[in-house]
Amino acid sequence: MSERAAPEKLDIAVIAGDGIGPEVTAQAQRALQAALPEGVELTLTEYPFGAARYLETGEIISDAELHALAQHDGILLGAVGGDPADERLAGGIIERGLLLKLRFAFDHYINLRPGAISPGVKTPLSDPGEVDFVVVREGTEGPYVGNGGVVRVGTPQEIATEVSVNTAYGVERTVRYAFEKAKSRPRKHLTLVHKKNVLVNAGVLWQRVVDRVSADYPDVAVEYLHVDAATIFFVTNPSRFDVIVTDNLFGDIVTDLAAAITGGIGLAASGNINPDGEFPSMFEPVHGSAPDIAGLGKADPTAAILSVVLLLEHFGLIDAAATLEAACRADLASRGGASRSTSEIGDAIISRLTA
Amino acid sequence: MSERAAPEKLDIAVIAGDGIGPEVTAQAQRALQAALPEGVELTLTEYPFGAARYLETGEIISDAELHALAQHDGILLGAVGGDPADERLAGGIIERGLLLKLRFAFDHYINLRPGAISPGVKTPLSDPGEVDFVVVREGTEGPYVGNGGVVRVGTPQEIATEVSVNTAYGVERTVRYAFEKAKSRPRKHLTLVHKKNVLVNAGVLWQRVVDRVSADYPDVAVEYLHVDAATIFFVTNPSRFDVIVTDNLFGDIVTDLAAAITGGIGLAASGNINPDGEFPSMFEPVHGSAPDIAGLGKADPTAAILSVVLLLEHFGLIDAAATLEAACRADLASRGGASRSTSEIGDAIISRLTA
Ligand SMILES: CC(C)[C@H](C(=O)O)[C@@H](O)C(=O)O
Ligand SMILES: CC(C)[C@H](C(=O)O)[C@@H](O)C(=O)O
Repeated sequence: MSERAAPEKLDIAVIAGDGIGPEVTAQAQRALQAALPEGVELTLTEYPFGAARYLETGEIISDAELHALAQHDGILLGAVGGDPADERLAGGIIERGLLLKLRFAFDHYINLRPGAISPGVKTPLSDPGEVDFVVVREGTEGPYVGNGGVVRVGTPQEIATEVSVNTAYGVERTVRYAFEKAKSRPRKHLTLVHKKNVLVNAGVLWQRVVDRVSADYPDVAVEYLHVDAATIFFVTNPSRFDVIVTDNLFGDIVTDLAAAITGGIGLAASGNINPDGEFPSMFEPVHGSAPDIAGLGKADPTAAILSVVLLLEHFGLIDAAATLEAACRADLASRGGASRSTSEIGDAIISRLTA
Repeated sequence: MSERAAPEKLDIAVIAGDGIGPEVTAQAQRALQAALPEGVELTLTEYPFGAARYLETGEIISDAELHALAQHDGILLGAVGGDPADERLAGGIIERGLLLKLRFAFDHYINLRPGAISPGVKTPLSDPGEVDFVVVREGTEGPYVGNGGVVRVGTPQEIATEVSVNTAYGVERTVRYAFEKAKSRPRKHLTLVHKKNVLVNAGVLWQRVVDRVSADYPDVAVEYLHVDAATIFFVTNPSRFDVIVTDNLFGDIVTDLAAAITGGIGLAASGNINPDGEFPSMFEPVHGSAPDIAGLGKADPTAAILSVVLLLEHFGLIDAAATLEAACRADLASRGGASRSTSEIGDAIISRLTA
């Protein structure tokens, strides 16, 4: 886990991105500044990556820029990907060329996505119970490796393949991280989610690694769920989950579902983490750029600010993280029906820090 | 679609299977018998396939048996797969060796899974709205083809792959079926669910085929959703869905979620359909063999009976199907808190047919 000494300086790259990205990131930057303990010197460097810049210059990110990014301690990302109706951006070119590119280039093998139902938060479930879990999604393998192809494009004989690649190396480091997480939590429970009755090669590898690593964590209880069955429990009994460990694609799917039942994508935070600190980790809300509400100042910055909580935790600034998270939770608990703007929510959370 | 003349004879193979399979299938057979119009002669032939027989003989299904099955008009299946704790059954050997084997051998390229919230049914959602959709899941391609491998098993250098195979041929016939379905329904709306921003080869093939076929159905409105976003809508706004078309694995995942929000896996029916009638279609509840409650007579047979509804529809017995479905819905609407046994529920539904 990221047990590191609190730093004296924090040098963060900011990629505000597209759509509502800049709006929520502005609040996340303010929150970071406000939450940081005295004596930690913060530098924020903005990078203009995203759909707008791509449409202007034809470039998503250069090797030199990637290298420059790599020099920072961490990255704060808003949201990338422009209007899906724009043909020039079709097919997720920005999402792959920027978001996935950074996850792979910086070996973000942990995609950490906590889910909890905060007091005061509305959930679509009528009786969710007490919900507090964290999904450890593998970030650099599985069907995300970009290994596939297509022949006879556009003909009746077209064939398209996608290859999921899974290694003991990649799975084990993720599984170990998940066990450490589980060990550090009161319930000490780990759920492996896969589809091992169909995807036998990958699934059996995951199961075998979990079994092996499990021997080092005798106090962590382990269960297995097929991904289809897991979606049922997210809806009927989400409180059964403590730590979930799963592959890149299943993790993508269940964390959106997890966000939906814990108050919506406007509250879901994530960390793309390189635990070894070889590369900068990247913190971002789970939500996308939401072009339909961009510029209206009505996006909820809470997910972006909760991503700052994960950033602070990553750098060992545990107290600052706890204080900022408590401010977010208190704000959520006090929300009435009144709709507030992006900056009003940011103000409210930050004012709780300084109060 | 399966617009065929009502038959004079119906020759159905029954695979009751494991766990609760035999219990629910007994009620499904009775319901089929009771719902069938006068003048249709029904033959039911039971086959002993499943975990029990495999454990006894070491065989799942022989080529001769497969050939015998192929001679029937249709197949009614309960549930297969024994106790997952039994090492000899580990890894889904029965599910793959029987269920998936039949889907592939009999070219069940349509996996039809309707989802509706019936009056009186309890759903975990506090405000689902009016929900009535049908998922058209592709059944013979995608990551289910069993194309993958593993090298250096059990070593730190292990690599496991899974290959998803998608063809224009396979996708187009599924997409056409889905458009026909959408055209026949009042809302005439089709949602393609995939993950085309990451699985670009397969995703773009699906999108291209949908775009092409869409030209033949100008009155059907089409939308695209990423699978992760789709899970959110199943929870926050399931009434937006009419017909959903998707790949084999995404279909597996979203139909369990769909079952969860529409009253649980005990009510979810499915048809594994070969629309061309070259091979027998197979009808089964979405649920599994539930070894934990097997033999207790408390499994809900409604999903199995609603699968008979799909069977009747498939054979053009539209009125009988509608009557049986209405009986199921009326039973659901009249359920109080009282818990009834498997056969009591069967009795109640069947008595509504003859009333
Ligand atoms: C935008 C997309 C590539 C991304 C993913 O699939 O990982 C997103 O859905 C997420 O979960 O962060
Ligand atoms: C048992 C399993 C192989 C099967 C599948 O994955 O298709 C089941 O989950 C289903 O949905 O019918």
